[in-house]
Amino acid sequence: MMLRSKVLPFLFCLVVVAFGTKESDLKQCKHQCKVLQQIEEYQREKCYEICEKLYHGEKQEKEEINFYEGREEGKNNPYVFNEEHFITGIKTEHGRIRVLPKFSERSKLLKGIENYRFAILEANPKTFVVPNHWDADAVLFVAQGRGTLSLVRKGKRNSFNIGRGDVIKVCAGTTAYLINRDDNEKLLIAKLLRPVSTPGQFEHFFGPGGRENPQSFYSAFSSDILEAALNTRKDRLQRLFGQPREGVIIRASEEQIRVMSQHEEGGIWPFGGESKGSVNIYKQRPLQSNQYGQFYQVDDSTYKQLEDLDISLNFANITEGGMLGPIYSSRATKIAVVVEGEGYFEMACPHLASESESGKRQGSKETETRIGRYQKVSSKLRRGMVLVIPAGHPFVAVASTNQNLQIVGFNVNARNNEIVPLAGRNNVMSQLEREALELGFGLPAREVEQIFQSQQEEFFFQGPGGRQSGRAAA
Amino acid sequence: MMLRSKVLPFLFCLVVVAFGTKESDLKQCKHQCKVLQQIEEYQREKCYEICEKLYHGEKQEKEEINFYEGREEGKNNPYVFNEEHFITGIKTEHGRIRVLPKFSERSKLLKGIENYRFAILEANPKTFVVPNHWDADAVLFVAQGRGTLSLVRKGKRNSFNIGRGDVIKVCAGTTAYLINRDDNEKLLIAKLLRPVSTPGQFEHFFGPGGRENPQSFYSAFSSDILEAALNTRKDRLQRLFGQPREGVIIRASEEQIRVMSQHEEGGIWPFGGESKGSVNIYKQRPLQSNQYGQFYQVDDSTYKQLEDLDISLNFANITEGGMLGPIYSSRATKIAVVVEGEGYFEMACPHLASESESGKRQGSKETETRIGRYQKVSSKLRRGMVLVIPAGHPFVAVASTNQNLQIVGFNVNARNNEIVPLAGRNNVMSQLEREALELGFGLPAREVEQIFQSQQEEFFFQGPGGRQSGRAAA
Amino acid sequence: MMLRSKVLPFLFCLVVVAFGTKESDLKQCKHQCKVLQQIEEYQREKCYEICEKLYHGEKQEKEEINFYEGREEGKNNPYVFNEEHFITGIKTEHGRIRVLPKFSERSKLLKGIENYRFAILEANPKTFVVPNHWDADAVLFVAQGRGTLSLVRKGKRNSFNIGRGDVIKVCAGTTAYLINRDDNEKLLIAKLLRPVSTPGQFEHFFGPGGRENPQSFYSAFSSDILEAALNTRKDRLQRLFGQPREGVIIRASEEQIRVMSQHEEGGIWPFGGESKGSVNIYKQRPLQSNQYGQFYQVDDSTYKQLEDLDISLNFANITEGGMLGPIYSSRATKIAVVVEGEGYFEMACPHLASESESGKRQGSKETETRIGRYQKVSSKLRRGMVLVIPAGHPFVAVASTNQNLQIVGFNVNARNNEIVPLAGRNNVMSQLEREALELGFGLPAREVEQIFQSQQEEFFFQGPGGRQSGRAAA
Repeated sequence: MMLRSKVLPFLFCLVVVAFGTKESDLKQCKHQCKVLQQIEEYQREKCYEICEKLYHGEKQEKEEINFYEGREEGKNNPYVFNEEHFITGIKTEHGRIRVLPKFSERSKLLKGIENYRFAILEANPKTFVVPNHWDADAVLFVAQGRGTLSLVRKGKRNSFNIGRGDVIKVCAGTTAYLINRDDNEKLLIAKLLRPVSTPGQFEHFFGPGGRENPQSFYSAFSSDILEAALNTRKDRLQRLFGQPREGVIIRASEEQIRVMSQHEEGGIWPFGGESKGSVNIYKQRPLQSNQYGQFYQVDDSTYKQLEDLDISLNFANITEGGMLGPIYSSRATKIAVVVEGEGYFEMACPHLASESESGKRQGSKETETRIGRYQKVSSKLRRGMVLVIPAGHPFVAVASTNQNLQIVGFNVNARNNEIVPLAGRNNVMSQLEREALELGFGLPAREVEQIFQSQQEEFFFQGPGGRQSGRAAA
Repeated sequence: MMLRSKVLPFLFCLVVVAFGTKESDLKQCKHQCKVLQQIEEYQREKCYEICEKLYHGEKQEKEEINFYEGREEGKNNPYVFNEEHFITGIKTEHGRIRVLPKFSERSKLLKGIENYRFAILEANPKTFVVPNHWDADAVLFVAQGRGTLSLVRKGKRNSFNIGRGDVIKVCAGTTAYLINRDDNEKLLIAKLLRPVSTPGQFEHFFGPGGRENPQSFYSAFSSDILEAALNTRKDRLQRLFGQPREGVIIRASEEQIRVMSQHEEGGIWPFGGESKGSVNIYKQRPLQSNQYGQFYQVDDSTYKQLEDLDISLNFANITEGGMLGPIYSSRATKIAVVVEGEGYFEMACPHLASESESGKRQGSKETETRIGRYQKVSSKLRRGMVLVIPAGHPFVAVASTNQNLQIVGFNVNARNNEIVPLAGRNNVMSQLEREALELGFGLPAREVEQIFQSQQEEFFFQGPGGRQSGRAAA
Repeated sequence: MMLRSKVLPFLFCLVVVAFGTKESDLKQCKHQCKVLQQIEEYQREKCYEICEKLYHGEKQEKEEINFYEGREEGKNNPYVFNEEHFITGIKTEHGRIRVLPKFSERSKLLKGIENYRFAILEANPKTFVVPNHWDADAVLFVAQGRGTLSLVRKGKRNSFNIGRGDVIKVCAGTTAYLINRDDNEKLLIAKLLRPVSTPGQFEHFFGPGGRENPQSFYSAFSSDILEAALNTRKDRLQRLFGQPREGVIIRASEEQIRVMSQHEEGGIWPFGGESKGSVNIYKQRPLQSNQYGQFYQVDDSTYKQLEDLDISLNFANITEGGMLGPIYSSRATKIAVVVEGEGYFEMACPHLASESESGKRQGSKETETRIGRYQKVSSKLRRGMVLVIPAGHPFVAVASTNQNLQIVGFNVNARNNEIVPLAGRNNVMSQLEREALELGFGLPAREVEQIFQSQQEEFFFQGPGGRQSGRAAA
């Protein structure tokens, strides 16, 4: 598993041998990639790509060399992750765990969330995920299916049934195991992790296991140590830890599932007593709701265990043909995953805009520069895609016309976050003085006010697709 | 705008081709700079400079190669910033916004404050700064002039008149706009910003605007999205967002200024209710005051909104011919700007001392090394210059003999900070036992005590210039 | 002193000149080291080592190049530090101060504690450590001897006698000095420091001192500044600050020692009044105790001053022939130093396991990867050795059969840390359901339960060496 990813300042060293041909230079350049990788664990492909671009760039002397993800018409923007961006940590016939690489590996623009990791667990019906602990705090969201989660902490075990919409915090070091107790449906869990030991890097520690697949961490100790600690003879320990196992996600019998799923929904949190083991986001009162969508939230006021992580969760259900926003978050960065449906999103990004121009500005520090320039970042959305929406960035999400679009968002830096509406009732422009509108837009205040007051809905609106027939008259 | 600066571990790759001449090596070296810049956004000039130094250094075999800013007799020390260090974010005929590059780009010694940015806004009389929000928390200090600031947050607008000495916190994501309501005086505001999204990097987001200068972030969205969200026809939106604008700081009419400045000083903070919108640092009871100067402070006890930022502000008014210190801050790093007057400062810095010697110690790890060595860092001070004074570093500031020197300081890491006096009444040396003084200084305790008790004033003293005639008799 | 170490992403630039021989390449490579060091303060040796490995590796084409510390059979693992890893900050005939380099310089795996530094002070009998302050918060543990510590803060001095087992927090900027008041025994103090200004970097600031050895920071100021500030004539200041001194740790007379050690043990903390100046870890009620060892803790509940640092301390006294663990810490990373005795430790590490395999996985992102693989990290333990034990990592420590093994641990990230037992009474496996054990280990639950219930002791056990005769019958 490549969980141990690095914050690599993307350095690179090009050797141009004075008398070399271009081709031999390229070869040299790629050789460098190989060497660098040994030292710095470069992703070889990324390095190769730069080699190609460098030499390509050198041939076309006047052309700008363009390294940034997302510059090419937003087609490859750093804010959108799909299936191919995930690393498979575990993949067996019974399920898999997929993890996104460290965000800052994707783009320097995501450095603010580089200490968080995002993972998705998929377990087939009637399977068991072997007990293990992680060196990371985690927030789990059940995107699909029905399971039973067991957590062992402070010498107590707490098992509870979980289902779609449940939010559960699992503290670092907690031993956790899980069954998918459904007969037919996959269990899908989205996880946001915050490593406690090495920033942006976490590992799974399996107690149960054998010689391999998974290895038990017990088996890493010398056998005389284990004999002494467990007060048990070597041959019996060899039987316990010496066999290969069948994987991290394995098939369980009907009877095993039956016994292990006799637990309450939610359950009482035994570790401190002040809070439940999980809360369900669908059971919250929606913050926003109309015919075009509903918006739910779980934060530390409804689920106290999120407090020290400074994380909240949102769930947006956008009705088919509807849209959410434009809005922005005042201080939280949202890591969102599409759990159902299709659609697209658009976001205004000043960082990409400034990068795409920075090449042209070199040497001219003291000139009128480009405060106030935005690049549109956009992407189609499909089930399983992950979006990052940084604080302050205005965005919209639009559902397709034939299916609701459902997105769950983990908000990092959630404390005192405010969601600011840019259209519809209570939009921020409608708070400005007439003089400010006039000066800001260069049009009579009345005209500007009229535009920002034309939309009567709030937060969720009829989307552009749904408006083909009934276009507004404003 | 070059706000998006990088924390660049200052790497560099030198290619010495075996049979090359020195000149061709230098050319090669500079070529590397160009390449590296593509990948890592190096400041090309800095890289070139290193090339020059490297080849210069190689010619004079025995000579130390000297890369550090500030080594050359303090003339170019990394703690002092003047006009040329600023980047101009915006410059129009009506004003400008200047921003310091990320501190860690200047020197690795400033890495501790790399997540903070410093900016200065200048707006001409009777001008308007177009509404926008930032992905950064900000603390503003009004250094000069009279304005009206409007903040929109949580669906409410709060406008209040501001003037010299006012301290205002603006939360990330707040829509802010501003007028200079004075007929003659420029409005000057110093800002300390702490980005909430990408560390050390922030952007301005303009809602009002047009196609450019500034662009409205609305215009980054597809037109069908905007039509749907604002429930408004394309042609009307084109009128609103499709024209170029006149800049971020623009001229306002007498009437517009008059209407927008009908607000109270300070005003009531409508966002939570526990605190005022601003406090004035001059209206605080001075922490220190005598004929040579006054020292004021605003912290979270006087302005609760500073609490979560862990920032405090100081204002020092040093009388002409007077001096402040030597003192040091126990844990805060001070980012200070000269708002009035002239003078100079001196600081004792162990980091620069150790760097300038590190070249000589190579290979000899296990020897007597240089704990307890300090380099004097000094600079003339003029209006508009910015100083960084790290925690623990003793410093003095001296006013010229013909004008008061006024410095406002933003203290980062302010909680539990203690200002420790090194001379005058209550200086830290006078707390030591006689035996400790004797052993520490190697002189009879009485002699040491006499010296540290000769100065009767506290904190502010008569400066060296003012002492030409009336030299003390001690 | 090399306190100012850098977080160096371990970059390196290899020049392969097309027609060069291998030998000339190596020379070139080392030349690069020299150049890089000028810019980035590389440890030249480390760089040289890589050169050697690179060229060695290139000769044996098919062989994996192996850079990681600790891969070679754990013999050189990054979690263990002995005498040779320390940098000597100060070394005189009367004592020395040794500091570990920044942890992240040793290995990227230690990045999580790179902002902490570890130091050991040794002062001979009847010596004095000259007053100074640091730009770091510090927690001190007296490992051996009897001294008197004086702290000057907020205009007050607090002196108190300290002895073996005392824990003292010293806030950044506090002026501190120290005597060893014992006639025969060395005073040994282990320090964990958290710099407040530059991350991972701190300096000592000496007020008392002279022209050098140590230099007084006063002497870095211009003489007219000092004359004015201290209101004292130049010649008298020259006498005070102009002479070289005898070092930072110096011999004190019987009489000086006598006067300076007339203080209470512990003493009352005058800086805020809520807490004592120090607490003794041996006087705490042990968290665990049996015939094989005792385990003590000092945290913010027993010593309030540790609260804002989020640090706790543990002291483990492992009886000769006994062992501690296996256990793991749920969220704290432990920086531990052996204060007495000999033995060894073992730890299960997934990070090293994954690194040693990462070479083999290249190009194959989407395959079954190695979640659940652990490498044994082990080392003999001797007095003075330092261990880092990251959160989540199971480990054991075993005492030799002829002497108790005593280890003091500083726990970073201590809040809500849980110590999880993996063997003996209340071990975490005994909390799992029978079905989970069965599925996890692939053996009948009864057999697994029997093994995990065979050890009746808790936390400390009879070690493998002590079991030669009386082997258990389980």
